[in-house]
Amino acid sequence: MNSELSSQQVKDIGEQGLLERLQRFCPPKIIGDDAAVLETAPGQSLVVTTDVLVDGVHFSNITTSPEDAGWRAAAANLSDLAAMGASPLGITVGLGLPGELRVSWVERLYQGMTECLQKYNTPIVGGDVVRSPVTTLAITAFGQVNPSQIIRRSAAVVGDAIVVTGVHGASHAGLELLLHPELGQNLNNEEKTALIRAHQRPQPRLDVLRILWKILTPNSKLSIAGMDSSDGLADAIIQICRASGVGAVLEHRQIPVPKTFNHWLTPDQALKYALYGGEDFELVLCLPQELASGLVQHLGKGAAIAGRITAGSTVILHDEQKKFPDQVLNLSQGFQHFSQ
Amino acid sequence: MNSELSSQQVKDIGEQGLLERLQRFCPPKIIGDDAAVLETAPGQSLVVTTDVLVDGVHFSNITTSPEDAGWRAAAANLSDLAAMGASPLGITVGLGLPGELRVSWVERLYQGMTECLQKYNTPIVGGDVVRSPVTTLAITAFGQVNPSQIIRRSAAVVGDAIVVTGVHGASHAGLELLLHPELGQNLNNEEKTALIRAHQRPQPRLDVLRILWKILTPNSKLSIAGMDSSDGLADAIIQICRASGVGAVLEHRQIPVPKTFNHWLTPDQALKYALYGGEDFELVLCLPQELASGLVQHLGKGAAIAGRITAGSTVILHDEQKKFPDQVLNLSQGFQHFSQ
Repeated sequence: MNSELSSQQVKDIGEQGLLERLQRFCPPKIIGDDAAVLETAPGQSLVVTTDVLVDGVHFSNITTSPEDAGWRAAAANLSDLAAMGASPLGITVGLGLPGELRVSWVERLYQGMTECLQKYNTPIVGGDVVRSPVTTLAITAFGQVNPSQIIRRSAAVVGDAIVVTGVHGASHAGLELLLHPELGQNLNNEEKTALIRAHQRPQPRLDVLRILWKILTPNSKLSIAGMDSSDGLADAIIQICRASGVGAVLEHRQIPVPKTFNHWLTPDQALKYALYGGEDFELVLCLPQELASGLVQHLGKGAAIAGRITAGSTVILHDEQKKFPDQVLNLSQGFQHFSQ
Repeated sequence: MNSELSSQQVKDIGEQGLLERLQRFCPPKIIGDDAAVLETAPGQSLVVTTDVLVDGVHFSNITTSPEDAGWRAAAANLSDLAAMGASPLGITVGLGLPGELRVSWVERLYQGMTECLQKYNTPIVGGDVVRSPVTTLAITAFGQVNPSQIIRRSAAVVGDAIVVTGVHGASHAGLELLLHPELGQNLNNEEKTALIRAHQRPQPRLDVLRILWKILTPNSKLSIAGMDSSDGLADAIIQICRASGVGAVLEHRQIPVPKTFNHWLTPDQALKYALYGGEDFELVLCLPQELASGLVQHLGKGAAIAGRITAGSTVILHDEQKKFPDQVLNLSQGFQHFSQ
């Protein structure tokens, strides 16, 4: 890229000019009318989710390159679809941009976004670009799901095992390392890179769905409860319990954390990162014990049965080794806990 | 509303608190999971459109109450669906809000939005509320359309009549009256109110589709070309001609304008308002002459055949009374024309 191009600002080419530049990230023929048209498969329900991200609030040039901001925004929305059991159909991208923003920043944002989307065969099908004093990114993702396979927060029943599809705390650890590199002095480069990558390039767990439906075929009338852990593992379990009118017991030692944590963090720190760190974008699923074991086996590394659904309404953190006393988790306690 | 409530700010109740307050504008049961689930009819294609609106750029407290800003945002998105031939299924609303913004402002925005949406049986099915230094509204609307009835810009053919579904220029006249009340001294109150209302409460022409499909049944294989006139009537016709590789002749006296214009504006001003004013949210449709006549008859007041599609690529404004010389319309000329 020559220096003239790389210093070009949004106001130099205008919203319309920028939209034309961004069209190479979208499938041809989909753009050009007042709205995009997409095919859905017969008998499928439509699933829709939306996120707004604001510069300085949800992303920042300090810890996040434009490519990573784009990847993370796409991943978060695809994760919401995965959390409903839905396959993605497409996303729309609304951008509010200051005139002084570099065009190359926007192109790099789209580059990261499409890198993530292409991994899951998801096109950008529409968008809007407008002038705004603050860089703002509004993504709406839509997908489709067989109505019998919708995953809902409200479907957990007493006795269900709680499956966590991967390790928790890695994304928060990566963010901490970006903000305070000195924290990483006891980690080797590979360990640091892995944690930072977990923060910058989270993987929405759409792959879990294929395995889930394979295991469930003989029990297809079963409703699976679940959501993603974007706001933290504790939050996910509490939200599921609230929506389902049940409680849960989490087993301290069964909560999967990155191996690195064992020699890098105290057990208490590791627990905080895992429960309250957020943005790991794993799925938390509640299903009968036997199916849960099968799912964890198929998922492999990081997946675990982290607890079980109980009667009542409390979510208890239990340590079978009795090193920690039982703790009742709730959302406000969670956040206080983390900010200590 | 007591004064304590009316002065409450977004930061007093937080994003989560505000989301809870706004849920009364949404159908129960649709909200609560990571994403919303909607049914689509078998065999229909999904249509998606998105708009971002920024305080000070797209709306302003000077001319627009929060209710009107909400109505207009919803209407613009429904109009994009109508322009594709699609029936609305729902919208998602992403909000970026400064902490200092009054909660009542947001509730009034939602009030106006749902007033418009309810008229067209369209639910708000999801949303996101985040902190932002500038009030930002990102709406994504989705609808469904029988694939054989998709209206596209690219489907105009030589000989088609150009149907305009209603008067043009009223919205811009209303905005001018709000900004410069002194311009209205030759208008009575009823006339002023009607023009201002056209600006504040535009009506997306979803009603046109029902009439269109009734008229078209015997010719159902016919592709209709069209778009909405949100960016002005001249823009709509030029866009259709560009996408279809055709030209057009517009007949000056056939362009429908509000009756008020005849005794209030010079013919030249009236023409500028009609061609370049924008935000009338009417439909511009291209179809065979006979069907066009039937459609105009069914639509009644304001609807007209304003011209015809020709070979070539120029869009000519013609005056059969020869008071004005023929003019070739193009987009940049349009804007220059209007800014004179």
